[in-house]
Amino acid sequence: MVKDIYPSRVSETPKMMERQDPVIHNREAAKDGPLTNNQLDFYEKNGYIMLEKFFDGEDLKMLKEELDQKMKENEDRNGPDVIKEPNSNEVRSIFEIHKDEGFFERLSRDERLVKIIEQILGSEVYINQSRINFKPGFKGKEFYWHSDFETWHVEDGMPRMRALSCSIVLTDNYEYNGPLMLVPGSQDYYVSTAGETPDKNYESSLQKQEVGVPDEKSMEWLVEQAGGQIDRATGPAGSVLLFDCNTMHGSAGNISPYPRSNVFFVYNSIHNKLEQPFNGKAPRPEFLANRENIKPITPVSGLKQTEKN
Amino acid sequence: MVKDIYPSRVSETPKMMERQDPVIHNREAAKDGPLTNNQLDFYEKNGYIMLEKFFDGEDLKMLKEELDQKMKENEDRNGPDVIKEPNSNEVRSIFEIHKDEGFFERLSRDERLVKIIEQILGSEVYINQSRINFKPGFKGKEFYWHSDFETWHVEDGMPRMRALSCSIVLTDNYEYNGPLMLVPGSQDYYVSTAGETPDKNYESSLQKQEVGVPDEKSMEWLVEQAGGQIDRATGPAGSVLLFDCNTMHGSAGNISPYPRSNVFFVYNSIHNKLEQPFNGKAPRPEFLANRENIKPITPVSGLKQTEKN
Repeated sequence: MVKDIYPSRVSETPKMMERQDPVIHNREAAKDGPLTNNQLDFYEKNGYIMLEKFFDGEDLKMLKEELDQKMKENEDRNGPDVIKEPNSNEVRSIFEIHKDEGFFERLSRDERLVKIIEQILGSEVYINQSRINFKPGFKGKEFYWHSDFETWHVEDGMPRMRALSCSIVLTDNYEYNGPLMLVPGSQDYYVSTAGETPDKNYESSLQKQEVGVPDEKSMEWLVEQAGGQIDRATGPAGSVLLFDCNTMHGSAGNISPYPRSNVFFVYNSIHNKLEQPFNGKAPRPEFLANRENIKPITPVSGLKQTEKN
Repeated sequence: MVKDIYPSRVSETPKMMERQDPVIHNREAAKDGPLTNNQLDFYEKNGYIMLEKFFDGEDLKMLKEELDQKMKENEDRNGPDVIKEPNSNEVRSIFEIHKDEGFFERLSRDERLVKIIEQILGSEVYINQSRINFKPGFKGKEFYWHSDFETWHVEDGMPRMRALSCSIVLTDNYEYNGPLMLVPGSQDYYVSTAGETPDKNYESSLQKQEVGVPDEKSMEWLVEQAGGQIDRATGPAGSVLLFDCNTMHGSAGNISPYPRSNVFFVYNSIHNKLEQPFNGKAPRPEFLANRENIKPITPVSGLKQTEKN
């Protein structure tokens, strides 16, 4: 049996451990770009980076239109990969959009993005999970602190910390509409949480996570090592936030009139494919954690489909 | 019967009305201070002002100690004026602290504060409601948008908009620990809300307001007239936030490790005493809305009790 170097949900008491993997996988090889040395420094130190207005002009327009279109298409569809508002057809999230053989597949392969992800993860990459999110104004719910890696490791069998999330922000994110909050430097520590995973945990954990949640003492310590600072991913529509799989993040609710929507891709190193979940349970469904036909992404140039490609 | 110039909860549909009262009650008489002309302009335009580090040094230290002391004293006391965490003795709010014949009464009469309040409200003033609040980190709850005046008018019979809230902030308020949010300029409009007040509404409305809540369309309009801006009352401990009784405000939850605590005084003009509630129901209890023995405040100098006073 594989030794579990990131055990979690195995004990009655939480435990803080050091990260065993680099944040920039091969810093030497990464020096040729696309991210500059300063940008890499920032990401390595803090566990995230905001690339302001990464998409702009025609690209941004197309992104918004395609997101609206995708939402509409799914209003009358029911499936585990479509999350709707209780008692209504309003779509909140659609998973697996990178397999649509259309715009979002192309977007996930966009070479401007992929080259950066490959630079950070130090290898070819593939998409482990994808979704679009629409969070309405006035009633956006809070999402408590968590490390994505903790869940991906325990429930999906992701062996090492060699993955990241890419959030393409399609609405302006302000201080007052519940932006994502991140604890700088938290990616360097692993909070082994207390408790055990219930069966089919994902059926409720997408709404509200109950296990795999860090304890208050660990959170206090993590924020303290960050000098008491918690950062917010604010910025104009079209910005791209990249954050390490183990960066502690969460968000407050949104009572402002302004909705938030984004496209979300989880990129994983091709050398870090999922194994059996470390909790010994059945793996989560494919739409949450890809295992089938895993192949490295071939980057494409430009969001617009042309005859050539 | 008195004509109700600010009707609310009387119809099935909400309605936006203009304010009938000045924000600075007598701008001409106010020009001699203590607030400067620029500060008055800011307050009149936006409906609030943050006075950074109003209390500092020894004053701030005393304030924090007295708050802690008051919390401890009330741990084992039960009463409608003490709000505790469900299933625990942890105190969240204590009302009527300005009647303690001790530190908090003195604080409510502090001449540095009272002179400013009198300047804004254009008359002598009294305390209509007071409390101290302690909101813990990690689990601070959101409070949805509301105008205090709407409730004070409908449920307490406050005739006109000639009152303000004074919040003495005793913890540092950051963007990320659920600071009070305010809609600049919203004090100039009155949102007459839909619905009717249930009996003893205050028993649940202190936790979560269900009636008197502005509709989403009105909120969108108010934020739009503010240029899309929502302000946050951030600042160091010891700062004082003054905001008009009709300024629309709310707060998101607080998942950060940092608690928030403050002292809260509602000052009302002596010419604006409570009448019968405009909803025709029984008035709320004295600890929420003072009616008995109303006398103008006599200001005192300094927070420390001396032999002289």
